Amino acid sequence: MRDNPELHFTREEYNARLRHIWAAMQARQIDLLLLSDPCNLYYASGYDAWSFYVPQCLLVEAGNPEPVWIGREMDRRGAYLTSYLASGDIEGYPDDYVQAADRHPMSFVASVIRSRGWEGAAIGIERNSYYLGAGAFEVLDRELPAVTWIDAGNLVNWVRVRKSPAEIAYMRQAARIVERAMGVGIETIRVGIRQCDVAAAIYAALISGTSEFGGQYASSPPLMPSGSRADTPHLSWTDERYAAGSITNFELVAARFRYHVPLARSVSLGSPAEAVRKLERALVAGIDAVLSQLRPGVRADEVEAMWQDAAQTFGVRKKARCGYSIGIAYPPTFGEQTVSLRPGDDTVLEAGMTLHLMPAVWQEGASLAITEPLLVTESGCEALCRFERCLFVRS
Amino acid sequence: MRDNPELHFTREEYNARLRHIWAAMQARQIDLLLLSDPCNLYYASGYDAWSFYVPQCLLVEAGNPEPVWIGREMDRRGAYLTSYLASGDIEGYPDDYVQAADRHPMSFVASVIRSRGWEGAAIGIERNSYYLGAGAFEVLDRELPAVTWIDAGNLVNWVRVRKSPAEIAYMRQAARIVERAMGVGIETIRVGIRQCDVAAAIYAALISGTSEFGGQYASSPPLMPSGSRADTPHLSWTDERYAAGSITNFELVAARFRYHVPLARSVSLGSPAEAVRKLERALVAGIDAVLSQLRPGVRADEVEAMWQDAAQTFGVRKKARCGYSIGIAYPPTFGEQTVSLRPGDDTVLEAGMTLHLMPAVWQEGASLAITEPLLVTESGCEALCRFERCLFVRS
Repeated sequence: MRDNPELHFTREEYNARLRHIWAAMQARQIDLLLLSDPCNLYYASGYDAWSFYVPQCLLVEAGNPEPVWIGREMDRRGAYLTSYLASGDIEGYPDDYVQAADRHPMSFVASVIRSRGWEGAAIGIERNSYYLGAGAFEVLDRELPAVTWIDAGNLVNWVRVRKSPAEIAYMRQAARIVERAMGVGIETIRVGIRQCDVAAAIYAALISGTSEFGGQYASSPPLMPSGSRADTPHLSWTDERYAAGSITNFELVAARFRYHVPLARSVSLGSPAEAVRKLERALVAGIDAVLSQLRPGVRADEVEAMWQDAAQTFGVRKKARCGYSIGIAYPPTFGEQTVSLRPGDDTVLEAGMTLHLMPAVWQEGASLAITEPLLVTESGCEALCRFERCLFVRS
Repeated sequence: MRDNPELHFTREEYNARLRHIWAAMQARQIDLLLLSDPCNLYYASGYDAWSFYVPQCLLVEAGNPEPVWIGREMDRRGAYLTSYLASGDIEGYPDDYVQAADRHPMSFVASVIRSRGWEGAAIGIERNSYYLGAGAFEVLDRELPAVTWIDAGNLVNWVRVRKSPAEIAYMRQAARIVERAMGVGIETIRVGIRQCDVAAAIYAALISGTSEFGGQYASSPPLMPSGSRADTPHLSWTDERYAAGSITNFELVAARFRYHVPLARSVSLGSPAEAVRKLERALVAGIDAVLSQLRPGVRADEVEAMWQDAAQTFGVRKKARCGYSIGIAYPPTFGEQTVSLRPGDDTVLEAGMTLHLMPAVWQEGASLAITEPLLVTESGCEALCRFERCLFVRS
């Protein structure tokens, strides 16, 4: 493990991460882990560059503190610059492997696996990672016939679930940034201004950050559907001007050293209808219920029930999950793909876990998003953001 | 095909797209195309939402002008709002399929394929799409044993290669936006300002757009490594303050209705070294050579040779490809994954193709990025942006 001042964590912290990963590998009889998810590359090695649009991976051998990075030749410099990896463990494939019809980068990966003596190993893969494609695995499988492939699932994602104090410190910084950006959005929005101009102001706040620390690009853009589009999740902005009487749901997310903290609030341009006010009360009552009851030892599905029970007294029930684990992210999502706050998820929550309590409700005519990023503490739970929990009204 | 005022193209244009796709399917004996790439969903149906972090697809049957969208239940509204698809052809899987250990959204997709009578069809898949994972295909393959799977490769990407006048009009709008953002970056950067504050100003310009049209989120963030990091591709900004004597490579990209136009320029804070000036002359001479010689009928590898030959007179040779096709994009890339300007790519260029001529060079101590998005015209080629082609010097 090479010292590198660009790293965001101590050598001890990286060593502890590797030890946790090795333990999880051992439990599944995995000799070598082939990581594809850029979040997991970053977590295990520090590697951080916008290179995941071409195949790349990190090979972590059980018990071996020196993983091997394989990516595009031109990205070897970035791997050296941002990680603790030794130069000899940074392998690059030539540029004519990139998006070529006649060869695949995974052939190069297979050759590295053979050259390092792992051609008969039990290799864990992230079968459902965004960045291990069907074609990539087919090449690996064909070119390494003696390998036993084991679906490692979200092995490293699950190791990431409990955050260290250093990780929590970065998440608190991201929380400061997202609060600021939300404030800018709520101050900037008004009847007659273009949606894209409000989005521009929000982006500037997310990236400029505070006077002490800046923001990074996030895994996801601000989602901020307005008016008739506000009933629909996952839409961004348009060129249209905000209309009187419309509601806008701001779902923002800030990133600090790849640690993401999301926050959502809704704004009404003019007095909201009573049905909307009722929905607001339901969402907030649900959040209050969770904040007062969530503590280590509670299960994920119990948290969902806390929210639903409180919201139910206002006649509101959410069909989709009420939240999920958060932390390191790259496109296309800031969800950690581990804990989900929904029926059937029996994960026992522990101190150091960070969750996005996400009780947004989209329904015809009354849709709101009021959410809270949470940290499970030793004795209970803490909202990472300090931002008034309500439907904002502007004109 | 349902009329929908939210669509960005005419019904005739969508019909023409489908006809081109059917022809390509027929040539490969594909009955049904299962599209995973969000660019191709958008191109074929108009569907546009940030939902691709969960499995989704569009089923295009040869000769059938009514494709079928399958995604998450909560995204059905977005599919109806943004596409021409009929309500009955928008199928949603329940939320407990999302990132669950015990079930996979592709089981739902398999059930739709069976229920519509395609369980014995020859189905084309995008085996190397970012959004068809190894795990997703495994489920499809297991649950549809009578299907003949055909790797459709980048079938729709290749249909997208020739742009229509309406597409080119949007790319010209994106070109106006990226010019403006580059101007903001070059005006804002100075010794002592934080990198993240310049990034914030650039983002605001990319999203605010012009007074006539706004920008959208792009597939990729601004890449803008500076100083010792400028020798490394694919890095973004930091919190550091710009140092005197440093060089910064701005690689920006603007998006208009998902059509992306990139542009890169370098800035030197103080007088650049002679080696850097020489590199500048090489990059610009290469671009001039391509602009004066590229015309329909020329091959992609010949374009690369045009650039290399001109740069070679300054002693510069680029190892990686010199450019690629551009158009519709979602994360993680704005490359179209079709034409590459490199040796061995014998694609014959045609009018309506749009390319990013990307002769950036990263090498120890002298790295610059001066690039041009190009449109192949009937008689030659045109730079989509009008932005001085040089290394800028600021203090």
